[in-house]
Amino acid sequence: MKTMTRLALAAMAVGLFCTSLSRAADVLPAPNGITLPENYQDWRMIGSSSRIDNNTLRVILGNDIAVAAARSGHTNPWPDGTILGKLVWKDTTHAAWEKAVVPGDFVHAEFMFKDAARWSETGGWGFARWVGLEQQPYGKDAGFVSECFGCHTPVKDNDYVFTHPASLPGR
Amino acid sequence: MKTMTRLALAAMAVGLFCTSLSRAADVLPAPNGITLPENYQDWRMIGSSSRIDNNTLRVILGNDIAVAAARSGHTNPWPDGTILGKLVWKDTTHAAWEKAVVPGDFVHAEFMFKDAARWSETGGWGFARWVGLEQQPYGKDAGFVSECFGCHTPVKDNDYVFTHPASLPGR
Repeated sequence: MKTMTRLALAAMAVGLFCTSLSRAADVLPAPNGITLPENYQDWRMIGSSSRIDNNTLRVILGNDIAVAAARSGHTNPWPDGTILGKLVWKDTTHAAWEKAVVPGDFVHAEFMFKDAARWSETGGWGFARWVGLEQQPYGKDAGFVSECFGCHTPVKDNDYVFTHPASLPGR
Repeated sequence: MKTMTRLALAAMAVGLFCTSLSRAADVLPAPNGITLPENYQDWRMIGSSSRIDNNTLRVILGNDIAVAAARSGHTNPWPDGTILGKLVWKDTTHAAWEKAVVPGDFVHAEFMFKDAARWSETGGWGFARWVGLEQQPYGKDAGFVSECFGCHTPVKDNDYVFTHPASLPGR
């Protein structure tokens, strides 16, 4: 029975993988042409944050290039090919532990794509965001990027990235 | 040059993988005999939280069985074979954005291992924690588990698990 359960869960995992692939292909690109990375939900963790100014919790994931860079400390600048994904939820209070702030409604997933040549006008980064569980692209035209880049200017000295990789054992 | 950089990072990633394997093997088991899961740092994200009572940020990761269960909503009870890993940092303030709470010093990694038969006396869960970047096992003897289990009793109706998987697109 235990083996059956594990097999069933493995089958479900494969099914979810395929579902996820098809879902990403159905999502519209951002107005600057960037497409949603496939299976970003499966990327590894680089950091997290809690913003008390807008009551959101965030987990920062990265593709393989980003994770290798983060764990080896090569993040200023991040290498070309890096994709950082920030998953954002409205925060809420844990029903059984009122001093714990936990993820509520999903707000959006936003990404930074490093390609120093392609995105030379915005610090070497392409920006994109998809809103809600429906993953609607953010911005009515390609000009939305000025908003992203403006917000990231205070961290120009950190390659325009707010995230500092969280300290982890075994690095 | 771009290709060289990517190759170098890929090589580093392989190196880190091996380093991580050897590091986990060097870590002492918990007093109840549970050993540190290898490469848990690479597991996928299930949730996050910010505890304002002890000023810590947490990211909850899961092994493949846990992630499949989380994404298919089979979490009460979680299936045998589930391992949930909670990575905990003291929180601090982002130097460039004072309203952002971000991970500071690594505190510990703590785990719940689901095996309904083996751990029948503690709700079907085995508990273990490793402290600090050095990953010292927590507890002076196997009795430490009563502390873990006691804390989780308020969430008995959620299979003794505080974490509710964060909402994600493409599920």
